[in-house]
Amino acid sequence: PSPPGVRPLCRWPLSWGRASRQPPGLPLAPCRAFSNNKILVELDESSGVAMMKFKSPPVNSLSLDFLTEFCISLEKLENDRACRGVIFTSAVPKIFSSGLDITEMCGKSMEHYAEFWRAVQEIWLRLYGSNMVTVAAVNGSSPAGGCLVALSCDYRIMVENPKFSIGLNEAQLGIVAPFWFKDTFVNVVGHRIAERSLQLGSLYPAPEAFKFGLVDELVPEEKLQEKAMAVMAQWLALPDHARQLTKSMMRKVVLDRLVAHREEDIQNFISFISKESIQKSLRMYMEMLKKRKS
Amino acid sequence: PSPPGVRPLCRWPLSWGRASRQPPGLPLAPCRAFSNNKILVELDESSGVAMMKFKSPPVNSLSLDFLTEFCISLEKLENDRACRGVIFTSAVPKIFSSGLDITEMCGKSMEHYAEFWRAVQEIWLRLYGSNMVTVAAVNGSSPAGGCLVALSCDYRIMVENPKFSIGLNEAQLGIVAPFWFKDTFVNVVGHRIAERSLQLGSLYPAPEAFKFGLVDELVPEEKLQEKAMAVMAQWLALPDHARQLTKSMMRKVVLDRLVAHREEDIQNFISFISKESIQKSLRMYMEMLKKRKS
Amino acid sequence: PSPPGVRPLCRWPLSWGRASRQPPGLPLAPCRAFSNNKILVELDESSGVAMMKFKSPPVNSLSLDFLTEFCISLEKLENDRACRGVIFTSAVPKIFSSGLDITEMCGKSMEHYAEFWRAVQEIWLRLYGSNMVTVAAVNGSSPAGGCLVALSCDYRIMVENPKFSIGLNEAQLGIVAPFWFKDTFVNVVGHRIAERSLQLGSLYPAPEAFKFGLVDELVPEEKLQEKAMAVMAQWLALPDHARQLTKSMMRKVVLDRLVAHREEDIQNFISFISKESIQKSLRMYMEMLKKRKS
Repeated sequence: PSPPGVRPLCRWPLSWGRASRQPPGLPLAPCRAFSNNKILVELDESSGVAMMKFKSPPVNSLSLDFLTEFCISLEKLENDRACRGVIFTSAVPKIFSSGLDITEMCGKSMEHYAEFWRAVQEIWLRLYGSNMVTVAAVNGSSPAGGCLVALSCDYRIMVENPKFSIGLNEAQLGIVAPFWFKDTFVNVVGHRIAERSLQLGSLYPAPEAFKFGLVDELVPEEKLQEKAMAVMAQWLALPDHARQLTKSMMRKVVLDRLVAHREEDIQNFISFISKESIQKSLRMYMEMLKKRKS
Repeated sequence: PSPPGVRPLCRWPLSWGRASRQPPGLPLAPCRAFSNNKILVELDESSGVAMMKFKSPPVNSLSLDFLTEFCISLEKLENDRACRGVIFTSAVPKIFSSGLDITEMCGKSMEHYAEFWRAVQEIWLRLYGSNMVTVAAVNGSSPAGGCLVALSCDYRIMVENPKFSIGLNEAQLGIVAPFWFKDTFVNVVGHRIAERSLQLGSLYPAPEAFKFGLVDELVPEEKLQEKAMAVMAQWLALPDHARQLTKSMMRKVVLDRLVAHREEDIQNFISFISKESIQKSLRMYMEMLKKRKS
Repeated sequence: PSPPGVRPLCRWPLSWGRASRQPPGLPLAPCRAFSNNKILVELDESSGVAMMKFKSPPVNSLSLDFLTEFCISLEKLENDRACRGVIFTSAVPKIFSSGLDITEMCGKSMEHYAEFWRAVQEIWLRLYGSNMVTVAAVNGSSPAGGCLVALSCDYRIMVENPKFSIGLNEAQLGIVAPFWFKDTFVNVVGHRIAERSLQLGSLYPAPEAFKFGLVDELVPEEKLQEKAMAVMAQWLALPDHARQLTKSMMRKVVLDRLVAHREEDIQNFISFISKESIQKSLRMYMEMLKKRKS
């Protein structure tokens, strides 16, 4: 049972990691293209590949509304037998996603913080534990939560532009990436680089990120979509069942750790974020962003 | 006690990882050269190095008979005080080992599957936990279980020929590498590369495998044996006791995980492999191999 | 309670890893520069950076006296609000530190072995768990325990001279690095390289150590101090609190493992080191060192 005041975002399917899908007897919810406000989803039924485009200007920040829509879109695709893989990319120039929306963490109620953090957890659990093949086509900068989205995919392709950077830079804002961000990061880049990067809040230009494996491949911007489709085709050439069981085997330990400590993690977030010192530093950061814009 | 119908392959010595050998009072079983059918073992007592040559054409597949002979040969050497290191190589051109014998997993009884899987576990436990220095001299392709044999050694030297490939390609056959294959793989190449390679069932040409550490060294074919002997000499220059304790410290966690879940792992294998869908896909794979030959 | 005969070296603060400092109400113990016999500490209050120079010729070996002084110096700095980072370097030419003092492990009483080992544990717990930014400026060779000191820092800069080598070479002396040396090593270089290096007792020339990340950066000797200060400034640009919590999150598992098994680890050390075979091999090693000198 959820604690009072915390709306369950979307239910966590019992089947994750077990490669099961909707039982064959149920009617199929057809899923071709749907868009709400912030995310555009196009499913090509012939290839089984969906394209999920973040279109929430100016910077695709992960607000509660964005996360809710992201979650629902993912769930739809996960339950759609016509869909075997998803490519994530941005419809906003120069930015993939700026990460968690700071306005959701500033001057709000405890209940709001809890609801927001549960939504952040939920999207990671669904993405990192997805049965579908997930490819991040990173066509812009991708700090903090934006980087987490990319890290949670099976494969990361990034535009080779050195102006685009990626990394978990939470420490630069005076906040701490939670343990499951860290676990996901360590699984990709190893302990030494994760330790240093998290402490320094490092953002890496795409070419540097590629050198140590934070992204798997660099391409010119005009080749990104083509390359993402080619990579997806290579992954989809494998039988789903074995691939899904293998993925689950690789990621289960880390997923289970959050599942086991989810409420505790929410409480930690609330008590950390509602500290006056943290609130002050977030307000200063937002002021700085506003001034930069004008 | 073993479950009914499961023959204990060879007893697991209580001493593994504790660097103990045959007690000094017991008579030494002399061990110079022995060969049964599928494996040739030559021990050079002056250097303390044994050469174990797989000679089971056409592809050194790991049948139950092969595994039983492999296990007995290893145990003999492990208990022979004259032997401190083993080099594994193939007497069959172009192939190191093709991995688990599919005919053992196709159309057989539950008892047979259990016996076969126990033998696979046993060879890994002995090899990964060996007190001897183990060097793989990989002189041909080495997919799936063949790759596992190499991964379980202390050091891997491979012929630089790009036609020879190596990797855990189980996913390509629609089957899933068990958790201890995965643990062994992660220990060698790290989480990111293991995760991707296992999902894609990737086979890497030798030069590529070398780049990310799946093999430690490449040599021209004519230099392989010489190089393997040189590497072995370097390892044997160290005092056995400290080296063995260190090896045990590094590998114990992963070895213990299988020891603790051995019967469960056998049951998982049986229930997976006896599924009609898996049987069908294995039969198709064997048909394809037969056609390719003729 | 400590076992009888074991002097508690310096108390383990309850606060480690929780980023707490001396409560604001207490008077500040001013800490500018202090030197006892073996270590010189200079604190620049304007930058918040302390320089800790090992000056215990001929080789800065980690004797019980050295470790005690090291521990007290670290504790002073840790509790000094004016100090946010420490740079470790050597005042002895060509050597950073030769590691644990073998004379402390040879021909002494059980009580002495226990006291010595507790001091070794203590220095690692304090260093690996330090709230301060720790940078190793490695200006000479750094085998065994000397390498551990460097590995326990946040960042390692080494003079590019290939005559200076670094590594955990315990196996070459016939002794085994304890599990927490191993854990620290694996966190820096990964499992494969740690496993091989520990078994072979490998010492790597600086340029080679850099290639696989055992050191993070190489510089000419005359640039070392300048570079260390620049790196320190980069780390200190981050807010302490978030950085400290992040560091603790990354290292807690490994620190906790020793805290939980500390007495057991001492007993293991005593029973290993007091074996006649080990004592003999250490005596031979010391004889060799003496002959080499004369």
